[in-house]
Amino acid sequence: MAALGKVFLVGAGPGAADLITVRGARLLAQADVVLYDALVTPEMLELCARADKISVGKRSGQRSTAQTLINQQLVECAHKYALVVRLKGGDPMLFGRADEELRALELEGIEVEVVPGITTAVAAAAATRQPLTKRGVARSVAFFTSSTAPDEPDHPALPETDTLVQYMGGREAAATAERLLAEGRRPDLPVVVVENCSRPDERILRLTLTDLANGLEPGHGPVLVMLGEALARREHQR
Amino acid sequence: MAALGKVFLVGAGPGAADLITVRGARLLAQADVVLYDALVTPEMLELCARADKISVGKRSGQRSTAQTLINQQLVECAHKYALVVRLKGGDPMLFGRADEELRALELEGIEVEVVPGITTAVAAAAATRQPLTKRGVARSVAFFTSSTAPDEPDHPALPETDTLVQYMGGREAAATAERLLAEGRRPDLPVVVVENCSRPDERILRLTLTDLANGLEPGHGPVLVMLGEALARREHQR
Repeated sequence: MAALGKVFLVGAGPGAADLITVRGARLLAQADVVLYDALVTPEMLELCARADKISVGKRSGQRSTAQTLINQQLVECAHKYALVVRLKGGDPMLFGRADEELRALELEGIEVEVVPGITTAVAAAAATRQPLTKRGVARSVAFFTSSTAPDEPDHPALPETDTLVQYMGGREAAATAERLLAEGRRPDLPVVVVENCSRPDERILRLTLTDLANGLEPGHGPVLVMLGEALARREHQR
Repeated sequence: MAALGKVFLVGAGPGAADLITVRGARLLAQADVVLYDALVTPEMLELCARADKISVGKRSGQRSTAQTLINQQLVECAHKYALVVRLKGGDPMLFGRADEELRALELEGIEVEVVPGITTAVAAAAATRQPLTKRGVARSVAFFTSSTAPDEPDHPALPETDTLVQYMGGREAAATAERLLAEGRRPDLPVVVVENCSRPDERILRLTLTDLANGLEPGHGPVLVMLGEALARREHQR
């Protein structure tokens, strides 16, 4: 039997090609094959010009069996190629279902390594120049999502951290805001919404908890919603 | 008056020189001066060979006026140099006191941009191949710290997320574990401790909540403590 290839789960970061890590960029340049997400941008794929490229994109709402197919494709690629990169938007270990891919590879005895990526929350904080923690104001932050697996309750308790960041929060953001208002958070709590973070069509909205409860206009890309006192605009901030 | 320089707050990531972003590495190569933290590794500083380098290291426990001096140094550098990089361990917007540096620069009308970095939690997840979220098991994660500012209460409520990550958690981890036990989390809840993440002397400990409550041996570098069901070792994981 031919030797098995090695698989790297690589975080692509939020979208801009230069927000991948140096390690991730080097692996892309060396890769024999790259399996990439719907969230990975075309400019990022220019970093792996010599590799075979396989789109395994799925968006929320599509059937979850898609993940099983991705797992199978990864295993097949490790039998065909020496250096396999699984390129995932953001960071693989946060909302990336890496666990299922790792499990499938480990079961087959395939060597696998994970390269972290810039998760959208910190990229959005950088883009808006708003910190997620702030001395004397916020020393905890939660990242969460309302996207549900069939076996999960639809509405678990919201995290009670100082700062909250809702991933894939476009449709769910108004409901989150209503619940925070009901829990007693102040109506003018600062909220920052970032759509298409770090991409040419990035859009930043600054609003309040009450505004958010009134609903977000539907956007056209991944939406991140950040809430908390640490997000208040500074006096001389431009 | 001479034109003011531009300042970039750049996240260095957890320590390994190739875990900085491509954008961050390019800025280091171009920088005229780099002001760096105690958490920034010597190998990272090799990326800015041509820049003047200023150590502004401070460790927890040192007096907080150190931050005021750093703010002043940043402003002075923007008057002396064209391209100023403020290199911060991890990500600038998470436990980095970036807000204070941004405020000081904005007050002087100095242009400033933030480049995100790999925060230690996702680097530790990658190093241990343990996800921070997991479908059907964990869809929220909190990053928090117990390091206190003089005006903060010593022990605020712990976040009630599925996964918890305590930064700078070495000394405080046992107390955190005791509180989670008192709150009813199971005694054998998986805990992963990562010291000196991504560095040659990285150390990974796998234990339970009960073990953690019994105390951690004091280590010699930054310690990250991760707790939650998502951190359970997989059947075939090596």
